[in-house]
Amino acid sequence: MSSASAVDSPIERLALIGVGLIGGSLARALKSAGVCSHVVGYARDPAALERAKELGVIDEYRADPETAVQGADMVVLAIPVGVIKPIMGRIAAHLSPQAVITDVGSTKGSVVADARATLDGHLRKFVPGHPIAGNEKRGVDASFAELFEAHRVILTPLPETSPQAFERVKWMWERTGAMVEVMDVEEHDQVLAATSHLPHALAFTLVHSLATMDDSERLFRFAAGGFADFTRIASSSPEMWRDIVVNNPRHLIAMIERFKRDLDQLADAIGNNDGETIRRVFDTAKCARDRFTERRLGRGDQANP
Amino acid sequence: MSSASAVDSPIERLALIGVGLIGGSLARALKSAGVCSHVVGYARDPAALERAKELGVIDEYRADPETAVQGADMVVLAIPVGVIKPIMGRIAAHLSPQAVITDVGSTKGSVVADARATLDGHLRKFVPGHPIAGNEKRGVDASFAELFEAHRVILTPLPETSPQAFERVKWMWERTGAMVEVMDVEEHDQVLAATSHLPHALAFTLVHSLATMDDSERLFRFAAGGFADFTRIASSSPEMWRDIVVNNPRHLIAMIERFKRDLDQLADAIGNNDGETIRRVFDTAKCARDRFTERRLGRGDQANP
Repeated sequence: MSSASAVDSPIERLALIGVGLIGGSLARALKSAGVCSHVVGYARDPAALERAKELGVIDEYRADPETAVQGADMVVLAIPVGVIKPIMGRIAAHLSPQAVITDVGSTKGSVVADARATLDGHLRKFVPGHPIAGNEKRGVDASFAELFEAHRVILTPLPETSPQAFERVKWMWERTGAMVEVMDVEEHDQVLAATSHLPHALAFTLVHSLATMDDSERLFRFAAGGFADFTRIASSSPEMWRDIVVNNPRHLIAMIERFKRDLDQLADAIGNNDGETIRRVFDTAKCARDRFTERRLGRGDQANP
Repeated sequence: MSSASAVDSPIERLALIGVGLIGGSLARALKSAGVCSHVVGYARDPAALERAKELGVIDEYRADPETAVQGADMVVLAIPVGVIKPIMGRIAAHLSPQAVITDVGSTKGSVVADARATLDGHLRKFVPGHPIAGNEKRGVDASFAELFEAHRVILTPLPETSPQAFERVKWMWERTGAMVEVMDVEEHDQVLAATSHLPHALAFTLVHSLATMDDSERLFRFAAGGFADFTRIASSSPEMWRDIVVNNPRHLIAMIERFKRDLDQLADAIGNNDGETIRRVFDTAKCARDRFTERRLGRGDQANP
């Protein structure tokens, strides 16, 4: 391990696979913290790479992931979870022995399965990760260095993960201003099904329901600010979100079933003119939502409450 | 009709029943447009009345609605739809013959039934109305004169409604910068069930689902910006929203059923790993949501896209 970096030494060569909102923001944050001197990018779209270089987010780029990871001491996969497996398969044989590898995928069970199937001896240097940050925008032009500040990053190390690799990735995320938390893979996928994957599924479904009604153009004319907020996440990338929902089916379907039972109870209460039950449900929700807002404001989150 | 005001003459005495976000903003807007010289307020909560007077939103207040409406040429009921009927019953005998009366309720079928049951001879001076504006805040402190600018106000006149009363209320709302549209009562309740009542029901239900899970405190810690936007409307007034959903049961339950069918189809596609169907649903939703955003920005809406 003589050539391995100390946990808190700057990253010498970061291979950034995917230069979108998350990858671009990570590179910007590390550069702005002065802990990463050189970023080599790879992306499917050559124009995105060119743009990332123009913006100074990456220093150079390569036409394929195999050469992009060569000589890198840190490899970050900032790509949709649906393409993690083929990319891991391509880079596995080209990783430096000391390279630490991590990802930013929103589902961890699928990514861990992908890693077990492809990374072989490098599995112990792999630290599955997920920054709980982002918005409905995409692409390197939307990236900014402060995206992760005061946000949580979940790491789900495997039994095989080396403590040094884990500490290195934790150190990297903390340099962006993020708070790192550890979970096991199952817990991550359950928590995210509830707080992120289900809300996205509901928002996409609601807008789809309205968009396929006969008078949909007219309907949308009478939608106001509440509708705009509620459905903002339905402007997210359909490709990325298809990948997420198909890669967390068990937990997401369980949450959808739970939600449907609650919705049925509300519909029954409405049908029975049972104002007391409705009031109780709405009170519980408002109370929980208001507490959530207070905590967010308390930690200085810049986003809308 | 010699004492009746011309359609475009200033309101001489506005009786404002309810001094919350909507009522307060309407009074502010009319004063700031210079078309209303005197506002008499009534509200259940004496402290709210005192505060409204302190802020200059109303000029004076009365301890009961019967005296508040006396001598008023315009009466606005800016109260939850659940209390419209008792208030109408109390004021009916105290209205000046020339008084025009309108409301701001989110359900129109129920309000029209209330009016028919209580207003008697004054029914022809009643113009049911609904400004499509507001946010999750409440109370006169949250009110502001620009709330209705570039927003739609739906009026649902009855067969009995006098053209003069209708024109008078239309003129009033246009002075606030709003765009007035006419619908029939059934259409209003159907459109609003889809674009407002269903989203609120979903947001309250989602937060309730999460808040009643075993590990709810932990769950909310990992919710991010998308969740915050999606659930903002669950911070709305539980009392007001209970009143709304119980007063539009037929259309709302039909929309819930439609939504549940769409959600079932998505869950099936997820269970079957049918990425193509999921992608098609998400694409349709994103496309409709993006068009909606463009139109909102096009009309200069100040709210978040």
